[in-house]
Amino acid sequence: MSLHSLKSLHTLEHGTPVHVAGWVRTTRQSRSILFIEIHDGSQFATTQCVIDADHSQYPVVSKLTIGSSVRIRGRLKTGLAGKHTHEIAIDSIIIEGMAASDYPLQKKRHSFEFLRTIPHLRPRSNTFYAVFKTRSILTQGMHKYLESQDVTYIQAPAITTTDAEGDGDVFRISTLDPTQPHKDFKDDIFKQEAFLNVTGQIHIEPFIQAFQRVYTFGPSFRAEKSNTSRHVSEFWQVEPELAYVDLIGLMDFIESMSNAMIQYVLDHASEELAFFDEFIEKGLIKKLQQTVSEPYGRISYSQAIQLLLDSDHAFTVNPTWETGLQSEHEHYLTDVIFKKPVFVTDYPKDQKAFYMKLNDDHVTVAATDLLFPKIGEIVGASERETRLDVLQERIKAHGLDEQLYTWYLDTRRYGTVEHSGFGLGIERFMRYITGMDNIRDVIPYPRTPGSADF
Amino acid sequence: MSLHSLKSLHTLEHGTPVHVAGWVRTTRQSRSILFIEIHDGSQFATTQCVIDADHSQYPVVSKLTIGSSVRIRGRLKTGLAGKHTHEIAIDSIIIEGMAASDYPLQKKRHSFEFLRTIPHLRPRSNTFYAVFKTRSILTQGMHKYLESQDVTYIQAPAITTTDAEGDGDVFRISTLDPTQPHKDFKDDIFKQEAFLNVTGQIHIEPFIQAFQRVYTFGPSFRAEKSNTSRHVSEFWQVEPELAYVDLIGLMDFIESMSNAMIQYVLDHASEELAFFDEFIEKGLIKKLQQTVSEPYGRISYSQAIQLLLDSDHAFTVNPTWETGLQSEHEHYLTDVIFKKPVFVTDYPKDQKAFYMKLNDDHVTVAATDLLFPKIGEIVGASERETRLDVLQERIKAHGLDEQLYTWYLDTRRYGTVEHSGFGLGIERFMRYITGMDNIRDVIPYPRTPGSADF
Repeated sequence: MSLHSLKSLHTLEHGTPVHVAGWVRTTRQSRSILFIEIHDGSQFATTQCVIDADHSQYPVVSKLTIGSSVRIRGRLKTGLAGKHTHEIAIDSIIIEGMAASDYPLQKKRHSFEFLRTIPHLRPRSNTFYAVFKTRSILTQGMHKYLESQDVTYIQAPAITTTDAEGDGDVFRISTLDPTQPHKDFKDDIFKQEAFLNVTGQIHIEPFIQAFQRVYTFGPSFRAEKSNTSRHVSEFWQVEPELAYVDLIGLMDFIESMSNAMIQYVLDHASEELAFFDEFIEKGLIKKLQQTVSEPYGRISYSQAIQLLLDSDHAFTVNPTWETGLQSEHEHYLTDVIFKKPVFVTDYPKDQKAFYMKLNDDHVTVAATDLLFPKIGEIVGASERETRLDVLQERIKAHGLDEQLYTWYLDTRRYGTVEHSGFGLGIERFMRYITGMDNIRDVIPYPRTPGSADF
Repeated sequence: MSLHSLKSLHTLEHGTPVHVAGWVRTTRQSRSILFIEIHDGSQFATTQCVIDADHSQYPVVSKLTIGSSVRIRGRLKTGLAGKHTHEIAIDSIIIEGMAASDYPLQKKRHSFEFLRTIPHLRPRSNTFYAVFKTRSILTQGMHKYLESQDVTYIQAPAITTTDAEGDGDVFRISTLDPTQPHKDFKDDIFKQEAFLNVTGQIHIEPFIQAFQRVYTFGPSFRAEKSNTSRHVSEFWQVEPELAYVDLIGLMDFIESMSNAMIQYVLDHASEELAFFDEFIEKGLIKKLQQTVSEPYGRISYSQAIQLLLDSDHAFTVNPTWETGLQSEHEHYLTDVIFKKPVFVTDYPKDQKAFYMKLNDDHVTVAATDLLFPKIGEIVGASERETRLDVLQERIKAHGLDEQLYTWYLDTRRYGTVEHSGFGLGIERFMRYITGMDNIRDVIPYPRTPGSADF
């Protein structure tokens, strides 16, 4: 008899002989009866298994530890009253792997800080099972949505010799001996300096001239030394790039995709969302349903500054057009004024990357950040500058070396078209969808300054 | 009127007013008629657009260069005889981006070697459009198959401080100044040595104890200095890890997944495969259909050696049990003896990684390589060693530092279970599916020793 998944038990009749396997979440003894709750990864819930006899006859079983793996044969009992509507009456139990008694996930509440020290074990807790199952469902929903929109999936390289943002916070990769000083890199594996990519954008942008709509999904890397609940050194983002789409069309696309991903999670992760709603963020499901049911706000950067100035709120830093939107300002816009996601458009050009389209005012660019309540920026987006000469000027104005971008500029030399693109950070989106506060708690093995164990 | 995709024209009636946009693939003049073939990324084929008038009246249009981007309004003509069953009679044409006349992809045959020097432009050729469209479809098919099998998608980290294979060919990542010598890494961003992962396996293995079945899909990195048509420094692999699966079950799973992925490409990339079949590998489609229709070969390593010894073939290196299977031996097995994919199982333990399950003979491990005709190894797989003490011995025997694997060993301390996993290299699989010979030609931006431009 092959294994029954715990999920499949819901479809079986009372009395069916079953063979299940999984890991012990709890054991409980009541008089002569031993209750074992097991989890097998097929669903969020555990299944109760019962030895309905004097279990002292089974000395090993009575010492069964939490975390152990077991294989159980028995009969299914259905239609029960109470918390467990079905359970398994055990006929035989094999302990495949008895867990050492110092298994850290004993039946008690653990702080997220503690669980962060055991990223290889925390998925076995309710919270992190729900987090990583939701993350899987979210990313599957993303791939399906993009496929349905005829967006071709390109894997951009992680290794690059072109620094796309020009801001210097990049990881160097090398095979040279670090105990020796190196003035140049002609002896290094690529015979030149090489780095980890901060974005896949400039590598996939040329592919729109073949496929019209493309995206990449993979890890991006930032070596900045910020240790906050919003930053990790390695994160995942999905970056679509779309020809024949302007800033308005781009916002429409982003809103549809964001809503499709949320809806996919609502449809496929109901048990997990119910858990988050009860234990992590009250009202979460209602929030998500509301997000997909009404249009996101849209406001220009200048209007946003004006709204903030017009408010009575005492900000730590006063908002001005020149100094830009701080976190507190973004939060005020989404949490107090709009109470929903908001696109802020047309930022001052000096605040944004060189490839964003210069507006006719020559002061702002056709960029938009999508801000989510409590989270802040989840998407950074823009129409791209299609004019070769303007783009070259902008590269110079940003103090970058045009030589490095020769190949990128070919996209403008040979058949330039109106196009737009964005990056959506999966971890930040996960924070909104699960209610989990810290970015370290929605990525399997967080890498942050000072921390890359495992 | 929004844009019609060229693909959508197949469903429209004769005389329909259309608005299309795309890139010029060729232009041709015949008396007073100008023919422009455009491509918009929505399908493999181009669409012919015709100015049926004295085009010398339109001096700019008559100088239209290949690679330029245009927007065209006109009327659809259907039911035509000849190569093009439909075309567009142009009413108006806007040249959105005139390509500079040195656009490298002029209408002539280019060598793959030349095209490799312009990875940002080559997707605009027939061959590389077909390659990267097929790659997109293949990876979408992979995600869908794994989701259908209840395998949870985990994103393993690219940055690691644990060297999973212990073979030393890894990239170091650092933010330290390379012009200075560094004896230790306490001033580096992670306060310790950090590398790029060669596999996601050991990071996702612990997740089976929460989800039973998991996979990761992302870039892997090898710093080995081999410059062959089979190696790149950065490649993508899908790595599933499955609890309650032994070596036989693992081969069944791999075979099903491989066939599902091939079938998905057969079903969704028919135009691209027809192109490969005609221009890259004659008989490709029949080969793929045959692959999915009959069981893969299964043979032990010892049997494989014996078969090779029994053959009359004169190998450059004679096969022996101790020295292992060389490329020429693998090819002889798949191309001459089996003529289909073959699983070779139970390799000598010294040829394989420490985490593979030691067989009862204490000499071989429960590993399998799946070899494909003409390509060689596409999948490396094994049942994993579940016994803590045996695994510790194997770590020692491989000369590795057990301290580094403490967390990994927790999987065996706390509820160890029978489990198996594998890595399938997407680029090698792509070579089989497309017939493209060189791995550099199936990855968007190949990174190889001496080469990481762009």
